[in-house]
Amino acid sequence: MFEINSVIKSNRAAVLKKIDNKTKPPGALGQLEELALQLALITGPEEISLSNPTMLVFAADHGIAKEGVSIAPPEVTQQMVLNFLNGGAAINCFCQIHQIKLEVIDAGILEPINHPNLTMQSLGRGTANFVTLPAMTLESVDKGITLGAKAVYRHASEGCNVFGFGEMGIGNTSSASALLSAFSDLSAEDSVGRGTGISDQVLQKKIQLISKALAKHKHEFHDPKKILAALGGYEIVQMVGAMLAAAECHSIILVDGFIASVAALAAFKINPKVRDYMVFCHRSEEKAHQKNLEIMNAKPLLDLGLRLGEGTGAAIAYPLLLAAQSFYNNMASFESAGVTEV
Amino acid sequence: MFEINSVIKSNRAAVLKKIDNKTKPPGALGQLEELALQLALITGPEEISLSNPTMLVFAADHGIAKEGVSIAPPEVTQQMVLNFLNGGAAINCFCQIHQIKLEVIDAGILEPINHPNLTMQSLGRGTANFVTLPAMTLESVDKGITLGAKAVYRHASEGCNVFGFGEMGIGNTSSASALLSAFSDLSAEDSVGRGTGISDQVLQKKIQLISKALAKHKHEFHDPKKILAALGGYEIVQMVGAMLAAAECHSIILVDGFIASVAALAAFKINPKVRDYMVFCHRSEEKAHQKNLEIMNAKPLLDLGLRLGEGTGAAIAYPLLLAAQSFYNNMASFESAGVTEV
Repeated sequence: MFEINSVIKSNRAAVLKKIDNKTKPPGALGQLEELALQLALITGPEEISLSNPTMLVFAADHGIAKEGVSIAPPEVTQQMVLNFLNGGAAINCFCQIHQIKLEVIDAGILEPINHPNLTMQSLGRGTANFVTLPAMTLESVDKGITLGAKAVYRHASEGCNVFGFGEMGIGNTSSASALLSAFSDLSAEDSVGRGTGISDQVLQKKIQLISKALAKHKHEFHDPKKILAALGGYEIVQMVGAMLAAAECHSIILVDGFIASVAALAAFKINPKVRDYMVFCHRSEEKAHQKNLEIMNAKPLLDLGLRLGEGTGAAIAYPLLLAAQSFYNNMASFESAGVTEV
Repeated sequence: MFEINSVIKSNRAAVLKKIDNKTKPPGALGQLEELALQLALITGPEEISLSNPTMLVFAADHGIAKEGVSIAPPEVTQQMVLNFLNGGAAINCFCQIHQIKLEVIDAGILEPINHPNLTMQSLGRGTANFVTLPAMTLESVDKGITLGAKAVYRHASEGCNVFGFGEMGIGNTSSASALLSAFSDLSAEDSVGRGTGISDQVLQKKIQLISKALAKHKHEFHDPKKILAALGGYEIVQMVGAMLAAAECHSIILVDGFIASVAALAAFKINPKVRDYMVFCHRSEEKAHQKNLEIMNAKPLLDLGLRLGEGTGAAIAYPLLLAAQSFYNNMASFESAGVTEV
């Protein structure tokens, strides 16, 4: 379905040599050097190219939200989508300040919104409650992956090669926790966290519900798409397709927090080559995020205790990519600067 | 000497209320919320104002460098200053990409450079070797503090209220380690690290030399300025004065890595009110930096394994201040956006 090429690993030595010839002690720029290596392998060893960075925010509702597993009621998904469209949310501020284009996508919210700036690619009015039913059909998974990919192709054809992916959906940490358990060996106790801030009591309820859902759907856990159908969300499956398409386009994938990392894990299970293109942007406060990062062998750029989603961690990490690009492309070598090599 | 006012702590409740009314769960922006609180207390509770960000890079040489405690020979200080002036160093790249004005200052390098863009405020051609002599006189400390302050006043009068401070000086981690030991209870074993990358053998030699210096000068350790005279560097004392002046001007102080943090500690010992204005930008790979951060009760914004100095960690952290400003000033409240408050 997606023809993803791994990055050209044979360029690695040349890129490392270029980095080591810069006027600084070897390794002195730390993780920024690893980032520059990855970006150079994705966009070409001569120069790192970052163009038209774009944040795609996918919004959808979740059947499980009616169980009361979130701090907010389901109507907040729609309210926040309107807030995105009116420019008032955190992701608007961060995209604006860092010159990232923002597109908001209805992937399946409960009450559709008629707004000229909202991209309509709804898979339905919220998923089914996966505690008792599959969240969606396999056809919806395939359709969602295709729609997510199309959003990426549109921007890639206009010259974008850096994609951030954000999400909004009351209840979606429940879906993400269930997916993480299904994709790994984690129990619900270990995969479920406080989302944006639930109480101890609600946390226990959430763990019980996810345990029940995992038991109910475990016969599907041999296949990534069947896992997505059983436990996923409409925004999550579209993110999976979008990430796979971004890798196919040799674009950089900025992975945000917990929900986005679970989408990244699902994409990785479908096609492991996607991993080469992923930059993990921040470590979420959601406790299971760390486990997800370990599975993906990822060390995020930022660790600021964010737990908001929307793509916010990806947006605020983006200037670090600009810094990596800048030193890789523009910094003098020992030879060109006449500095004694160390 | 410096009239520093603490920030107005009584504004704290109003600022926190404004942050909590933003359309996000309470605390969901993590450390960015703490940063916004600090910036709002510095620049005013109505709106965070960041203007004309400026990086001052102080360069100087160190008598102890002739002992061979660095990976690079002393002439690299001058070579790197030329690299800064020609735009080829990491700090040039990062300042350029994040629109930070860069000023390079000769605070006391061995071989002066004649260049129109170099600010000359040299205290001498390198300090004395503090293993056997005081690094400088008390008069030099006072003069250095005054000169560092003047650099800040020049930019503050042109509307700058965000200062980053960088340094270049072969041997200056030795001075910084010795200062940290003198200002705290750390032995040389605990305050001395690998700088930009020395071997085990050189590390042992460096520890022995710093131990010897600490024993020699310990009768001066009751007074911050006498400590600076005994063990400091010309770039370090000018940074101390510059930081104190920045606080006096109600400006934000971006504290870079190990050397800059030791200058921050010295400034704090001279006038603790300076702490309110300090944003700690990154955790250096130099091991004693963590101890310094603990003394200052500081949790840095970035942890990317940098060990370069020059102000690089401060420059790459600056966009996080822009993000904090942006959400504080522009994000919608629950009421204005019509979002159900959580």
